[in-house]
Amino acid sequence: MNSAVDAGVPSHGRIPKHYAVKAELLSLLAELGVGALLPAERELAATYGVARSTVRQALQELTIEGRLKAFRGRGTFVAAPKLIQPLGLVSYTEAVREQGRRPGRQVVTIESVPAGSAHAAELRIPAQTHVYHLERILLADDEPLGLESTYLPVRRFPDLLDGFDPTTSLYRHVSTRYGLVYTEARERIETVLSTPRDAQLLGINPAVPMLLIQRLSFDQRGEPIERVRSLYRGDRIGFETVLRVD
Amino acid sequence: MNSAVDAGVPSHGRIPKHYAVKAELLSLLAELGVGALLPAERELAATYGVARSTVRQALQELTIEGRLKAFRGRGTFVAAPKLIQPLGLVSYTEAVREQGRRPGRQVVTIESVPAGSAHAAELRIPAQTHVYHLERILLADDEPLGLESTYLPVRRFPDLLDGFDPTTSLYRHVSTRYGLVYTEARERIETVLSTPRDAQLLGINPAVPMLLIQRLSFDQRGEPIERVRSLYRGDRIGFETVLRVD
Repeated sequence: MNSAVDAGVPSHGRIPKHYAVKAELLSLLAELGVGALLPAERELAATYGVARSTVRQALQELTIEGRLKAFRGRGTFVAAPKLIQPLGLVSYTEAVREQGRRPGRQVVTIESVPAGSAHAAELRIPAQTHVYHLERILLADDEPLGLESTYLPVRRFPDLLDGFDPTTSLYRHVSTRYGLVYTEARERIETVLSTPRDAQLLGINPAVPMLLIQRLSFDQRGEPIERVRSLYRGDRIGFETVLRVD
Repeated sequence: MNSAVDAGVPSHGRIPKHYAVKAELLSLLAELGVGALLPAERELAATYGVARSTVRQALQELTIEGRLKAFRGRGTFVAAPKLIQPLGLVSYTEAVREQGRRPGRQVVTIESVPAGSAHAAELRIPAQTHVYHLERILLADDEPLGLESTYLPVRRFPDLLDGFDPTTSLYRHVSTRYGLVYTEARERIETVLSTPRDAQLLGINPAVPMLLIQRLSFDQRGEPIERVRSLYRGDRIGFETVLRVD
């Protein structure tokens, strides 16, 4: 039994069969390398001496964790490592570019709607005052990685949409047009399940755990700029940050 | 159909039955309040006019998401909101206390082992040099919330374990004994599935998505102090941070 299995063994010493196969597969993926085609389910079952259903369960877990990518009719491939994004103030565009991938955005919704009471309080505007709601799918090399909803007060940014291409960076547009500096962001990170709508928009298996990041950004005068709700595919993306003592 | 359902509806307008029930249940949970006992599955099925298996699926998702807590033989209860921890340098002990809960730790492993090459490089010690490995279950009001593995170089902290109660804060012990200030931390956050061992130690359903936080901490002279791998229950805990432009 290899060390990847050992590390996951409960004290009672019994492990599910699919977990042992999963650990064997992890070694195999490392050998094969990113982009390689995996042997067929049937072949893997024969190699490891287990039922096809056991192999299938191991493959499913590895796919949900982003270690494998399945393409219907073409087979299952070793996935690239997760894209690691910096938490925070930097634009999505910049961060994706820095990792040598091509950023993109696909617009789902652009609307002006009355703010709910929680959003209004956070943005320090009267309840029911209008906010722009911009909902976009975040892409890297055309692959959907996340779904982002941004809310900005209409009164503060009345001509926000003038000359703004919604497939580009809103961060850059707001900074430039209004002379604002994104100075502080309060972020909350947790895992959630996707809704059927999220899963459809991102083209993912609803079992994929998602990372939900809720952010409130402030400018150089301490005024709230925007409220952002970002839902990221947990199988394709992770975050990093450097924290310092104040 | 209520607004919680609306928000999750795909463009084709069809939603899984269990998702409609889930949205109804979310309204019910809000009405009932934290700690309330939920009606029986059979009763809920009758109320919403669906099969018991549909109700069961909705209840399972809500449990995995931490909205419900099931106790075998006692029923299903409305769960308290997630515990929100600050990301970063502050001690787990302090953070849990600040939220009015009682922190605790249960020791799983204390050992001195040769460092792997990745850990050695990060801690700036020769490969195969020994590190202390301290593995503990993190508790809040006796409920397991996470599993934490900390690695510190033995050569730098030879008498680390002298007078250290491993059920208390290591952060405080190291700061005091060695006169160190935890000045910077590099953190990486992602979602993962638990291994069978993790699930057993934390007493959780293996389907619960976990938050994995990997941290490398530095002292006031920029020397690495410790490498920490923390695995948190995604159904019970979330993180927040305030980011500022440098």
